Amino acid sequence: MVDTRFDVIGVGNAIVDILVQAEDALLNTEGLIKGAMALVDADTAAALYAKVGPAVKCSGGSAANTIAGLAELGGAGAFIGKVHADQLGKVFRHDIKSLGVGFETAPATDGPPTATCLILVTPDAERTMQTYLGACVQLSPADIAEEDISAAQVTYLEGYLWDPDEAKAAFRKAAKVAHESSRQVSLSLSDPFCVDRHREGFLNLVSSHVDILFANEEEIISLYQVASFDEALQNVRGQCAIAALTRGAKGSVIVAGDDVHVIDAAPVRAIVDTTGAGDAFAAGFLYGHTQNQDLATSARIGNIAAAEVISHMGARSEANLKAQIVSLLA
Amino acid sequence: MVDTRFDVIGVGNAIVDILVQAEDALLNTEGLIKGAMALVDADTAAALYAKVGPAVKCSGGSAANTIAGLAELGGAGAFIGKVHADQLGKVFRHDIKSLGVGFETAPATDGPPTATCLILVTPDAERTMQTYLGACVQLSPADIAEEDISAAQVTYLEGYLWDPDEAKAAFRKAAKVAHESSRQVSLSLSDPFCVDRHREGFLNLVSSHVDILFANEEEIISLYQVASFDEALQNVRGQCAIAALTRGAKGSVIVAGDDVHVIDAAPVRAIVDTTGAGDAFAAGFLYGHTQNQDLATSARIGNIAAAEVISHMGARSEANLKAQIVSLLA
Repeated sequence: MVDTRFDVIGVGNAIVDILVQAEDALLNTEGLIKGAMALVDADTAAALYAKVGPAVKCSGGSAANTIAGLAELGGAGAFIGKVHADQLGKVFRHDIKSLGVGFETAPATDGPPTATCLILVTPDAERTMQTYLGACVQLSPADIAEEDISAAQVTYLEGYLWDPDEAKAAFRKAAKVAHESSRQVSLSLSDPFCVDRHREGFLNLVSSHVDILFANEEEIISLYQVASFDEALQNVRGQCAIAALTRGAKGSVIVAGDDVHVIDAAPVRAIVDTTGAGDAFAAGFLYGHTQNQDLATSARIGNIAAAEVISHMGARSEANLKAQIVSLLA
Repeated sequence: MVDTRFDVIGVGNAIVDILVQAEDALLNTEGLIKGAMALVDADTAAALYAKVGPAVKCSGGSAANTIAGLAELGGAGAFIGKVHADQLGKVFRHDIKSLGVGFETAPATDGPPTATCLILVTPDAERTMQTYLGACVQLSPADIAEEDISAAQVTYLEGYLWDPDEAKAAFRKAAKVAHESSRQVSLSLSDPFCVDRHREGFLNLVSSHVDILFANEEEIISLYQVASFDEALQNVRGQCAIAALTRGAKGSVIVAGDDVHVIDAAPVRAIVDTTGAGDAFAAGFLYGHTQNQDLATSARIGNIAAAEVISHMGARSEANLKAQIVSLLA
């Protein structure tokens, strides 16, 4: 009998977000690319932090956000990621475990501190991220708990893992273990600049190792280096079993073989902070998918989760998401 | 010539708040008194933290919140309080210094970590606080920078300082230095249970050493052990130059000699979290007072600042407070 303890296990960078409201002028002065995630060293992170106003700290990390969202919806989730045994590491661990998510990765006891991401939210609700990877660079194949991977319907990997070298090896091991256990492998492309840094690796992954791909419009266009979303859609068709593509206010498009489902965005009162929109969509979609919902319903759940998370500051849900999707699951 | 670099210098516990939404059932199970601040040891704090959901971390501390609010309004503030040289200590330092507040107290390099306050916000927007004082117990008279105290129009002391013994000595020194420099001393009673713990000390302080007293209805009733607000008001009259009393939705009452000003509460759309309401009122009132506004105008600024802070989670302002009070200062 197959042990399926988890609906989804995520592997990703374990990060504490530092959220701050900022003016566009600061992005310009600092030469930051709006909407992007940039990797910075400890000194650069500290220098920028010193230039911003009071901040709010919340657990983050792309795949971790997705697993947290899945758990909020009622899914059984687990997470693998590396924190340091410091105060922020304890914060990260508390937040994800308090949702009932399995998180057993041993914290690093030497080396750099827990990773932080300074997220500048501009008045247009766009977020610009500066990530100091800290302890995340110590995630290694030894941290990939094979029993947990093989006990999850879906192993969800964030593209950002392609940045630290050891994490990339951990990523590959997780995908291998999942497939050897006849499980599905899912990848989020994370960020157009991340795609740009690792295009060859991602193209190979998508065509050979990924069952469910998550990407937004910019990322999928960047992956195939094409001019339009429609071209990108034609390129990704057939490369993996399911491609779940998000288009912001235009909603989402699910491509699976010959099927293409176009799902309108869920209504949102006021967009406050777009941080975590893609992560929340993946949470909702994977929740539906692992509950055997059809692709369109899964995408609708994803759209609702994304609409909730962009209506407030921070990348994890505040409202009772589960109540919002009950009618979809009836 | 008198060196007046600061409008207000605050002395208080330097705390990072851990904010979490909680149901009333948890308060009951844990035997917590709704609305109160309780002091807990490290083990109790950790055990309760393990029972609550994902949390948001923001800098807090009663007097620190007040000085942060004063700075947001455009006042020149300074703060004295003890953090540890750890991650949360850096967070506290960043947040207050980023507002332009002077904060030069040396961090502790041994002993307990930076103080945390676990704040449970129930659906009725009431907050219940469990404080682990951590490094705050190391604040001592040596930390009271005499030049800074004597360079501030008002020295603002939180009643919570009466809990750690060394901090109490620091409190007394700050008041002494302020008066020797012909400056004003202000005290916030902090919490009715804090008043109950230290009634004799506070009664003596108010009648002998305090120029501007801040208290809410419950605190002033507790101080004089009377049955009604009106009785408490008669008791405090003449005990100190100014008593600024807050009454929640009923607004505030300022008593100064024979003058009594009753000021309506400022409108608030929806009350989300009452954490920091008293601190914000003190910020607004002291800003007005140190800008030579009359008592009624100062109280109106206080009411506006309090209305802003209770409209969102967290004890420090999110909106541009300064813009909201421009018409009052015209």
